[in-house]
Amino acid sequence: MVRWEPGAKERLQLAALDLFLHRGFEQTTVQDIAQEAGLTERTFFRHFADKREVLFQGQQQYAAEFVRGVRDAPAGAAPFELIRAALLSGSVLFDDERRPWSRQRQAVIDANPALQERESLKRVSLTDVLTEALVARGVDDVDARLTAEIGVSAFFVAFRGWIRADEQRSLDDLQQEALARMAAILPTRAPA
Amino acid sequence: MVRWEPGAKERLQLAALDLFLHRGFEQTTVQDIAQEAGLTERTFFRHFADKREVLFQGQQQYAAEFVRGVRDAPAGAAPFELIRAALLSGSVLFDDERRPWSRQRQAVIDANPALQERESLKRVSLTDVLTEALVARGVDDVDARLTAEIGVSAFFVAFRGWIRADEQRSLDDLQQEALARMAAILPTRAPA
Repeated sequence: MVRWEPGAKERLQLAALDLFLHRGFEQTTVQDIAQEAGLTERTFFRHFADKREVLFQGQQQYAAEFVRGVRDAPAGAAPFELIRAALLSGSVLFDDERRPWSRQRQAVIDANPALQERESLKRVSLTDVLTEALVARGVDDVDARLTAEIGVSAFFVAFRGWIRADEQRSLDDLQQEALARMAAILPTRAPA
Repeated sequence: MVRWEPGAKERLQLAALDLFLHRGFEQTTVQDIAQEAGLTERTFFRHFADKREVLFQGQQQYAAEFVRGVRDAPAGAAPFELIRAALLSGSVLFDDERRPWSRQRQAVIDANPALQERESLKRVSLTDVLTEALVARGVDDVDARLTAEIGVSAFFVAFRGWIRADEQRSLDDLQQEALARMAAILPTRAPA
């Protein structure tokens, strides 16, 4: 029987992030993380495939929320409304309580080229998943890809702003600002 | 003295691509490539750091063309005009003669997750370089990032279209279409 450790996953995440930040990602082993959290390596591997996944596992959940936003949007919603729904749905995971964790996690990634490579691939996967969700809602293939690109760009730019030391606004406020700025950058069309 | 091999680089590129496609990227060695091209491994390493660079070296040149477009645009150009100039400047490298090579190169990358990871990181680097070039032209930091994201998205979506088997239009025509579609996806602003 598997022994249930209440809060084990969160303890492992906090211990890992602390070690990654202060000792370095490469220099930290799974054994170190388990020890710091007062748990066993076996417990670690029940929650994470490897130490890198401590940083990236949340992105699966994020992608699922993104897709749920698209899927649950009202019938007849335009591509822009679908992407707004996706971004709003995803942003629920990034509340003020999570902001310090997100800041520290990004500092670890920014200090390690292999983690940056992983992050950039996860970004591509997120765009792919979102494109599929938009196609499933009847959006034309090319428009679905472009809409997903716009949405993922808005998320990443907003996220960088959200983790700035002095930033108080919510992630979704920053996402809306990014979308409005993108609209302002692209050329004005003639009114219908 | 280094012996000059006329067209050595192109011969190595063609030999490598042929082997990557028919034997697989992982299964091809630098020795195989040099042999197939009728050249030495030493000649290979004068042109490429490793076999992966046969596929990615061109992206440095592409990034440089992108940046040149931004740098040489007329004074007072708006962010959108700067990104149009970047895309047009970069597209000069992708003429009809290159299209079959680009198609085959993408087929090799799409078949190999490690190469996809490399490509996604190169995409992030391209966005970073373009953001810096826009900031150097006086564009606000956040707008520069968003403009670069729009431009790089337009390039990648247009590029996927450009290498389709039946596509005849130029890369820049497809880029302009992608930008127009993005403008149409984002909400219409009230006319000034």
